[in-house]
Amino acid sequence: MHKVIFDTDPGVDDAMALLFLHQHPDIDLLGITTIFGNASIETTTRNALFLKNAWDIPAPVAKGVAETIDPARAHVDWPVMIHGHDGLGNIGVPDTVEGEPDARPAHRFIIDTVRAHPGEVTLVAVGRMTNLARALAEDPEIVSLVKAVVIMGGAFDVAGNITPAAEANIHGDPEAADIVMGAAWPVTVIGLDVTMKTVMTRPALAAIAAASGPRAKLLADISDFYIDFYAHIVADGMVVHDSCACVYVVAPELFTTRTGAIRVVCGGIADGQTIQKADGRSFPPSPWDELPSQTVCTDIDADAVMALITETLSRA
Amino acid sequence: MHKVIFDTDPGVDDAMALLFLHQHPDIDLLGITTIFGNASIETTTRNALFLKNAWDIPAPVAKGVAETIDPARAHVDWPVMIHGHDGLGNIGVPDTVEGEPDARPAHRFIIDTVRAHPGEVTLVAVGRMTNLARALAEDPEIVSLVKAVVIMGGAFDVAGNITPAAEANIHGDPEAADIVMGAAWPVTVIGLDVTMKTVMTRPALAAIAAASGPRAKLLADISDFYIDFYAHIVADGMVVHDSCACVYVVAPELFTTRTGAIRVVCGGIADGQTIQKADGRSFPPSPWDELPSQTVCTDIDADAVMALITETLSRA
Repeated sequence: MHKVIFDTDPGVDDAMALLFLHQHPDIDLLGITTIFGNASIETTTRNALFLKNAWDIPAPVAKGVAETIDPARAHVDWPVMIHGHDGLGNIGVPDTVEGEPDARPAHRFIIDTVRAHPGEVTLVAVGRMTNLARALAEDPEIVSLVKAVVIMGGAFDVAGNITPAAEANIHGDPEAADIVMGAAWPVTVIGLDVTMKTVMTRPALAAIAAASGPRAKLLADISDFYIDFYAHIVADGMVVHDSCACVYVVAPELFTTRTGAIRVVCGGIADGQTIQKADGRSFPPSPWDELPSQTVCTDIDADAVMALITETLSRA
Repeated sequence: MHKVIFDTDPGVDDAMALLFLHQHPDIDLLGITTIFGNASIETTTRNALFLKNAWDIPAPVAKGVAETIDPARAHVDWPVMIHGHDGLGNIGVPDTVEGEPDARPAHRFIIDTVRAHPGEVTLVAVGRMTNLARALAEDPEIVSLVKAVVIMGGAFDVAGNITPAAEANIHGDPEAADIVMGAAWPVTVIGLDVTMKTVMTRPALAAIAAASGPRAKLLADISDFYIDFYAHIVADGMVVHDSCACVYVVAPELFTTRTGAIRVVCGGIADGQTIQKADGRSFPPSPWDELPSQTVCTDIDADAVMALITETLSRA
């Protein structure tokens, strides 16, 4: 069993990833920590509780902070055209839902849970890296206590999606991502290089919902608006960015990887860009030196990944 | 006939490109302008004159300035381990050679020559972009008088070679490159994305020299040291970066291209990185907006390019 804390900003593709984690038989979901990004921290936390209730997920929800690691960073508007005003595809999530978040802030929840299961917890982070960076700042020793960090974010050998250089999760808090990817814990980064190859079509999602009941039906309803947004990129479907990170936890053999130190550009026109110095390449002294070698996914067996997602979402 | 000004910092692969331009029947080489980079401006200018003499090239040599567009940029050591202390593979170029450069500085030579042949001149620039940026500053109207600008430099979807982010020609004067690529003249950029696929092996170069006489024999001698340097990247051969730009002038159909505005990162860890916003991709407002669409080479028919180079260098 893989013990997982899911750091997320639901968010439509976050919802699919959450259902994947909940339903995969080899994953033990220990907690859901929320971060702002696809919507405000209030909205993403409400949404996490809403999905926890709707899907009977036993894991607690812990609420993240509302501010980037560098508080001087300007706020960017929430992407309501992608995730809807409610962050879940405008399905009409109630303003208030049953249940309360854990009393601890997300980063404290991460620290406590990692310390309760030393060497066993995988952090799957699919939003901004703020909570993880805060956890590192408050308790640097967790780098040796976490089993693995799996991140959906970044764009290495391809263009970004929020700027020509940067992917949105990393662009939303570049300083946090630079801290997290430069820390001495094992990080795997699953960026646009591979996620853009994973498409769930509307008919495929409808078929899953028809075959497997109300959980998948809710997911299909949430995803409808997002699929409309993606029409300019994929035909009648959505890219399942966040689910890719969850698949990596249970099936890393479906990904091609490259190792090397990673830095995140902070400031300037490439703000938020992820750049890896591949192991084995030699350069003059550079800001990548002395950093730990991390893993970047460069290719993906998209058919096998989509088959595993389909199978897992289809579980009754 | 393609009228060409070759802006160059010879430099070993520059020498091969120069011989290609001189020997290709469809190219009319109007001038050689020098820039520092592979060696100092004194050395590259001396080398241009040396090659002009050795190969009976009628085109004049005009000497570039010794300073980046932003004079505050720190000097970087010359890459003597790649191009040798003499800039031509340590073949023992004499300290002084016959002949003098044109009385005009390189950027003025470019302006005058472009104005003498409006709409006809292609600038092939395979070093730092300093001379071209200076020409633009002194006479902005040349943007509408130049036929085309073909640049060897940059790295778009692949890693750099001087840092994980940047290619050496662009990294050597990022501000100049940002000016040149952002100007309203038609630019094609041939970067590491394609040049790294073009390898001239030592036996192939020896065969050319054996078949075709003293010009190619000198080229093979010059290239020997550079091939030794490249041993960690290619087996017994050299990447012919600069020649690719010359091939593009006469055979653009051998390249796959992508259009879109280009910016160059100036400062920070990605200093000198080239980033294109591909046409047809939409992003929030960004520093790429309002800039002209330029052409980036994303793939190359390397076999055909090497065959054309081999054929051209083999001319008696």
